[in-house]
Amino acid sequence: MEETDVGVCVPGFKAAGIRKGGYGLAVILSEGEADCALMVTSNRVRAAPVLVSLGHAGRGKARGVVASSGNANCFTGEKGLEDAREMCRLAAGRFGSSPQDYIVNSTGVIGRRLDMDAIEALLEEMPEPASSRDASLAAAKAIMTTDTVPKMYSVRTTLETGEEVHIGGIAKGAGMIAPGLVHATMFCFLTTDARIPGDRIQSVLREAVELSFNMTVVDGDMSTNDMVCLLAGGTAGNKDIDENFQKALDRVCRELARMIARDGEGATKYLEVTVRNAATREDAAAAARAVAGSSLVKTAVFGSDPNWGRIIAALGYSGAEMDPGKVSLYLRGREREVCLVRDGEPLALEGTEELKLAEEVMKEKEIHITADLAMGEGEATAFGCDLGYDYVKINAEYTT
Amino acid sequence: MEETDVGVCVPGFKAAGIRKGGYGLAVILSEGEADCALMVTSNRVRAAPVLVSLGHAGRGKARGVVASSGNANCFTGEKGLEDAREMCRLAAGRFGSSPQDYIVNSTGVIGRRLDMDAIEALLEEMPEPASSRDASLAAAKAIMTTDTVPKMYSVRTTLETGEEVHIGGIAKGAGMIAPGLVHATMFCFLTTDARIPGDRIQSVLREAVELSFNMTVVDGDMSTNDMVCLLAGGTAGNKDIDENFQKALDRVCRELARMIARDGEGATKYLEVTVRNAATREDAAAAARAVAGSSLVKTAVFGSDPNWGRIIAALGYSGAEMDPGKVSLYLRGREREVCLVRDGEPLALEGTEELKLAEEVMKEKEIHITADLAMGEGEATAFGCDLGYDYVKINAEYTT
Repeated sequence: MEETDVGVCVPGFKAAGIRKGGYGLAVILSEGEADCALMVTSNRVRAAPVLVSLGHAGRGKARGVVASSGNANCFTGEKGLEDAREMCRLAAGRFGSSPQDYIVNSTGVIGRRLDMDAIEALLEEMPEPASSRDASLAAAKAIMTTDTVPKMYSVRTTLETGEEVHIGGIAKGAGMIAPGLVHATMFCFLTTDARIPGDRIQSVLREAVELSFNMTVVDGDMSTNDMVCLLAGGTAGNKDIDENFQKALDRVCRELARMIARDGEGATKYLEVTVRNAATREDAAAAARAVAGSSLVKTAVFGSDPNWGRIIAALGYSGAEMDPGKVSLYLRGREREVCLVRDGEPLALEGTEELKLAEEVMKEKEIHITADLAMGEGEATAFGCDLGYDYVKINAEYTT
Repeated sequence: MEETDVGVCVPGFKAAGIRKGGYGLAVILSEGEADCALMVTSNRVRAAPVLVSLGHAGRGKARGVVASSGNANCFTGEKGLEDAREMCRLAAGRFGSSPQDYIVNSTGVIGRRLDMDAIEALLEEMPEPASSRDASLAAAKAIMTTDTVPKMYSVRTTLETGEEVHIGGIAKGAGMIAPGLVHATMFCFLTTDARIPGDRIQSVLREAVELSFNMTVVDGDMSTNDMVCLLAGGTAGNKDIDENFQKALDRVCRELARMIARDGEGATKYLEVTVRNAATREDAAAAARAVAGSSLVKTAVFGSDPNWGRIIAALGYSGAEMDPGKVSLYLRGREREVCLVRDGEPLALEGTEELKLAEEVMKEKEIHITADLAMGEGEATAFGCDLGYDYVKINAEYTT
């Protein structure tokens, strides 16, 4: 498997993006009809474009994605549904195919009607879609809201049967990020030139999402517009996919999830939490997410405070089976690692070398916490960030 | 029912408190043996004194409470258990009765051994327990950590059978506050002179805690040391309790819960969320807690931003049954109220009087959000606060 730089513009796909005023608009187009898998938020309030997209994706085929930023078109009633359908009609009018062939989504403030004149103008002025790194980047930039960097990642891998396949994606998301319970948790559009036979496209996507976006925690708020969409163009010439494909898709999703965590609203530090030897994988996932999502752990990371008791407390309320007397806890920066607790015995106590080292590690920009529960073989990793003043600043001043 | 000013020093009870250096110590004593109900955190990591107290409370009787601040005595292994038992022995040595007659707890940093010399010195220097407002206040002050104000409340009420009974409490808690799922969520010691016959003391306490402390959200982190304890001295001369007693206990717990929410770490505003006409009371409670606990709602309250879409999103992910087309949403300050959404129809849109009024209301120091789900008859209220810079400041600099 190798990293490439084309983002969603894998063979058979084009993209374009434009930003103007408070709005942005991105399109991703497959040359031919693509197989489509869609995962959306489990929030009971689902935005209009999410509902429209669920309808369009029902037959498992799509031609492309059209997505806007600046307004979520959520809680906008019947008019909102019309606006989402109109976005698909406008896209079909300019780029071909029928409106039902488009997956549509919007991101931004909730409860305000979409400015369809602005969307129409953006669509008219949008550059011709192209298959290039720059085109993918323009699409990634167009869907940004409080994101500070565009998020794009792609790889190529070789199947066991010899064919080379490509997988790429763009994502957005900085706040309102929480594990999606049932479905997905943010905004990610994935493309591949692989052919994915039968109905496996949904299951390979679900597997990748469980390990990546559903393990990403910024602030614990689950959005109304979360969406992960995979389009498979099928031009790579492969008959089937295999474990190599799944690994590559997992990696693309994990890297994009990491980018979202790193770019968490107001984040100054990246936080990765691995829980191993939990009773089950579900326990490991719950425990890792609880630690990565704990406001007290996040503020301690922000303040470089080696207050590891908060990690223990978060493990304790995560719901995972645990025996405090068996837990081991490790803290790792880029180069240094320290054992804070071994088999239930605290090592990083006042005056110890361990605590001093922990203080040093906590000052780093990338903090890895590993908890070994010694209960079984479950393992999971969660992706998060610290909680600093700027998270408050960004969210206290969002609509005003 | 009438408010009184004695706190835990209801007839038959004395209290004392002392603070020195980084430690504080409080005692509450019943003249005779009291009936005792105890609710503790459902965190799988339970602090040593919580475990010791569970053992002591097993026979349903207690003589008093001894509680320290400055160190949680949590994740401290066998030594921690010994230290907690030693606290009870020291209390029994000075105030009488046997060590097993004391409920014990500690609050502060997790994972560091208690300084027993400091505890012993505090106990020796502690003033003689007295039955007065000042004595209760000294106890309330002694258990403060990041609290900015001591928390104490008391009432007297008359039973239907004519006897007057008193209920009082002191509480602490500012951070690491979250609904306690199964048990309780913070630190509250309650006293009453009423006799509570049979095994009803636990059920009346549970009922009051469900409506108060379990509906209080500051930061979503559930503590390892949470405890609510009710001691019933039985000197009031009543044979039985009735609905008046439950109402009075509910009120004491609710007022103490409100004090905790108002004093949430770094809080600049008080937030109360009522959900009515939910499918069930459980749904109403889940929805109210989700809104009060949402980082995005809390930062919007801090920033006086009428971004009501975040409230809708939080209702949507709360797990409560809801139909976005039926929801109504109201915002209320001390004097003004505005309807943001009526029967699913947004009213507070750009340029409307409703949005202008919402902006004004959001500037107030006390914000009440009411959501009507129009699904049934369930109702619940959650108590919370905003999320501002000072929450980050306090928690980024806690141990260092």
